Amino acid sequence: MRLTHTLQAAALHHGGRIATVYGARTRTYADVLSRVARLAAGLRGMGAEPGDRIAVIALNGDRYLEAYFAIAWAGCISVPGNTRWSEAEHAFALENCEPRLLLVDRAFAALGQKLMSHAPDRIVYLDDGPAPAGLHDVETMIAANDMMADCCTSGDALAVIFYTGGTTGHSKGVMLSHDGLIVNFLAMNLVAPYGPHPVFLHSPPMFHLADAAAIIGITIMAGTHVIVPGFDPAVVVRAIREQGITALVLVPTMIGMLDAYVRENGADLGSVRELKYGASPISVALLHRALEMFPNARFCQAYGQTELSPVATILPHEWHKTTGPEARLLRSAGRAIPGVEVRIVDPDMNPVPVGSVGEIAVRGPNVMLGYWKNPDLTAKTIIDGWLRTGDAGYMDEQGFLFIVDRVKDVIVSGGENVYSAEVENALAQHPTVLECAVIGVPDPKWGERVHAFVRFREGATASEEELIFHCERMIASYKRPRSFTIRTDPLPLSGAGKILKMELRKPFWADHGRSVG
Amino acid sequence: MRLTHTLQAAALHHGGRIATVYGARTRTYADVLSRVARLAAGLRGMGAEPGDRIAVIALNGDRYLEAYFAIAWAGCISVPGNTRWSEAEHAFALENCEPRLLLVDRAFAALGQKLMSHAPDRIVYLDDGPAPAGLHDVETMIAANDMMADCCTSGDALAVIFYTGGTTGHSKGVMLSHDGLIVNFLAMNLVAPYGPHPVFLHSPPMFHLADAAAIIGITIMAGTHVIVPGFDPAVVVRAIREQGITALVLVPTMIGMLDAYVRENGADLGSVRELKYGASPISVALLHRALEMFPNARFCQAYGQTELSPVATILPHEWHKTTGPEARLLRSAGRAIPGVEVRIVDPDMNPVPVGSVGEIAVRGPNVMLGYWKNPDLTAKTIIDGWLRTGDAGYMDEQGFLFIVDRVKDVIVSGGENVYSAEVENALAQHPTVLECAVIGVPDPKWGERVHAFVRFREGATASEEELIFHCERMIASYKRPRSFTIRTDPLPLSGAGKILKMELRKPFWADHGRSVG
Repeated sequence: MRLTHTLQAAALHHGGRIATVYGARTRTYADVLSRVARLAAGLRGMGAEPGDRIAVIALNGDRYLEAYFAIAWAGCISVPGNTRWSEAEHAFALENCEPRLLLVDRAFAALGQKLMSHAPDRIVYLDDGPAPAGLHDVETMIAANDMMADCCTSGDALAVIFYTGGTTGHSKGVMLSHDGLIVNFLAMNLVAPYGPHPVFLHSPPMFHLADAAAIIGITIMAGTHVIVPGFDPAVVVRAIREQGITALVLVPTMIGMLDAYVRENGADLGSVRELKYGASPISVALLHRALEMFPNARFCQAYGQTELSPVATILPHEWHKTTGPEARLLRSAGRAIPGVEVRIVDPDMNPVPVGSVGEIAVRGPNVMLGYWKNPDLTAKTIIDGWLRTGDAGYMDEQGFLFIVDRVKDVIVSGGENVYSAEVENALAQHPTVLECAVIGVPDPKWGERVHAFVRFREGATASEEELIFHCERMIASYKRPRSFTIRTDPLPLSGAGKILKMELRKPFWADHGRSVG
Repeated sequence: MRLTHTLQAAALHHGGRIATVYGARTRTYADVLSRVARLAAGLRGMGAEPGDRIAVIALNGDRYLEAYFAIAWAGCISVPGNTRWSEAEHAFALENCEPRLLLVDRAFAALGQKLMSHAPDRIVYLDDGPAPAGLHDVETMIAANDMMADCCTSGDALAVIFYTGGTTGHSKGVMLSHDGLIVNFLAMNLVAPYGPHPVFLHSPPMFHLADAAAIIGITIMAGTHVIVPGFDPAVVVRAIREQGITALVLVPTMIGMLDAYVRENGADLGSVRELKYGASPISVALLHRALEMFPNARFCQAYGQTELSPVATILPHEWHKTTGPEARLLRSAGRAIPGVEVRIVDPDMNPVPVGSVGEIAVRGPNVMLGYWKNPDLTAKTIIDGWLRTGDAGYMDEQGFLFIVDRVKDVIVSGGENVYSAEVENALAQHPTVLECAVIGVPDPKWGERVHAFVRFREGATASEEELIFHCERMIASYKRPRSFTIRTDPLPLSGAGKILKMELRKPFWADHGRSVG
């Protein structure tokens, strides 16, 4: 199977149907297919060869969707960049994957030019023209080329590299295949199906697999992609009303923000039939409000990670009960989707008994090909086909998975993963900092908030503002600490000399149900 | 992915749910899992090693389903035998695939013993005991063994060899993989989904992939398998009423037989939600009657063949319209399912224009691994990943596939190609015609002549002149039947419910060189 074929089939079967809506611009599947095949020719004409990486740094847009397909059509590999990254983080990823070309929109044109030295030969301007000096205009490329034949890269071949934050301080390139991505959608759709002709709202960032998976899935369904630049409650509410959105993917934080907006402004969200969410469970209170907001929607929680293409388990609508004995399942991440195996293992990868906490391991066609240019880390992460998720959890006797905590020390803030190690590495480079530790603490808006413990060097000190400013130069803004505890005592250590984060977390989580692992 | 995991997941998620119903015997998924893992140990104890073939010759039964899973669990390969074959045909297949073991039920115990010399070391008696002398009793094996660990054969590995009739006179062993079978179900289910907790009636033979695919699919859905020994209208009607059957697979011939039975005896078939049929399109007349019989069913036509695991295209319920311009689609086989590519090619495998007749070629994850021990035929059948189906058809501009006839079965009369399906479709619409079949017979003037077999409805009749006049109003004159055989007995059917044209041709071609395949 291959990504480009999903578009070809949609264009053959429903060529006149609206494929993309972006602002006032709509394009049919026949249009998009033609543009994709011509853009692919343009990319090849600029020197991209089959197997080359092509990076994209852009806000959501219809051209972003086209870029995913055109890059595959040309036989190349997409590398979507996180739009919130710092220049240094982009530079690292580009030097790691060495893309031949870089595609940027208006918002990232200046950044793209600064990044030129880090790899790409040329930059394509993926926006309404004219292109800034030195950049190649995408519409000119599309207009200048005939449709080329699809390269038909398919099956187990590498399709996309998604960079994800790493515990070691650097992001890693997760390599996903055509088959892995497509089978994951087919299997997920069996448990939580889209209705006919979905009209899907892309408000989460397209560089994230949570949204990119819907680019593939909704194309398989020959549905309509309604694209907005990013998540904003007012924009989402308006898009739902004006476009008759039937399906969307959100994280609970976004549902909470929507709820706050709708309470104040009102909204008719009755067109939504399917609402998928992930990154964290939904609380009973928020689910109640969400069910009021989306009276006709079937709710579905998905658990997974980029390394899993991305879904491992699904909690479908029928288990979203707020009362009765089955209400306990609302805190679970559901059960493995068809073809995917989930088990809980000890550090030696041996299965633990039902109900015992261990690391969640996953095997199946959705497991990534590996980390780009990192065979050592790949070998540590995939053992005999089982992917170590780094998440801790347990499974009940009916196969429901309950996530307890992140083994790898990840903070999930507003749906974004923040790896403590990255923030700690940044903080530790401030000259006044002797030692530091970063944890997630409960936050009413973001689910978790990045909180830092800092101990200054003898005689030195810095304001919180200084520390934040320091971090923001090194890491994305959403990763920076939002609150601090300044300590004069050493941080508590385990026998092995590791900081006992459990101890640090306890006071913050005392009144919350979450384990402090 | 692997077949055994579908059973493991059903047992984990729905261990207490009824998995199989056979006569008065019901077993839960937990029971079936336990029996399968112990039977696998028993098979291994009798000398079967991973990679060995294990043949099965039996009528439908709950143990047949268990055998499919147990053979895979033991790391071996299932070879289901056609129960309508002659001893010589069985002997050919067994010598071709050299199974280590042969599993037979009561009906085939004697045949099994006669076949001993053709390969298997031992025979297992897959029926209620005691086993005849010399055969090993399956229940004794299950009782004597503990559950063994699943061998976890999976992915691209060979899972089942299905022998299919060949136009060259010998059957061929079609090799199908775990992934091919499972992905085919996931993709088909996206277009024509089963509802929650299907209760499926296995009345077509389990040795045929049309039914075996449902063994896999319904297990993925953790549905209930209701199994009857074979197709019989009275048995089917009773099973639907007593077991609340929600889903079944039939061929139009069987739907016609059911209709005749229900007209005479009456029946409430309202529990059926999904009715899938294949092997040939359904006529408007029969569809009308079927919609009356199954008032709550969604109809779905599937086209494919064993070599395609087995489905390539689906005509879903929404295209089953009997009036209006879209009624023409009722004669089509629908469109390619996700991940599967269908094209019409000329003899050099080049695509032909939209609307032109050519050979149907298919590419995708469902294409067989090849023919067992027949690399030459495999190389002729799969060209650059495209499987030549041997069927002729054309595709319209929206991707709807219309099957014209078997390429190898075309009647060449006076230099004109006559596709028998067209003639049969015309004849079948005459009100007196219950069933019919059209073949080419030798003709001194035209080379071949169009000859029709006709069986009239109870109490009805028509002259040859009337039938010819009727056909000439619907199809070109050269295509009309030139001669007739009026039958009072049913036409001979294959195990898959297809009319055995080979049998019909034999007497006409006895003194001629042409193959009657």
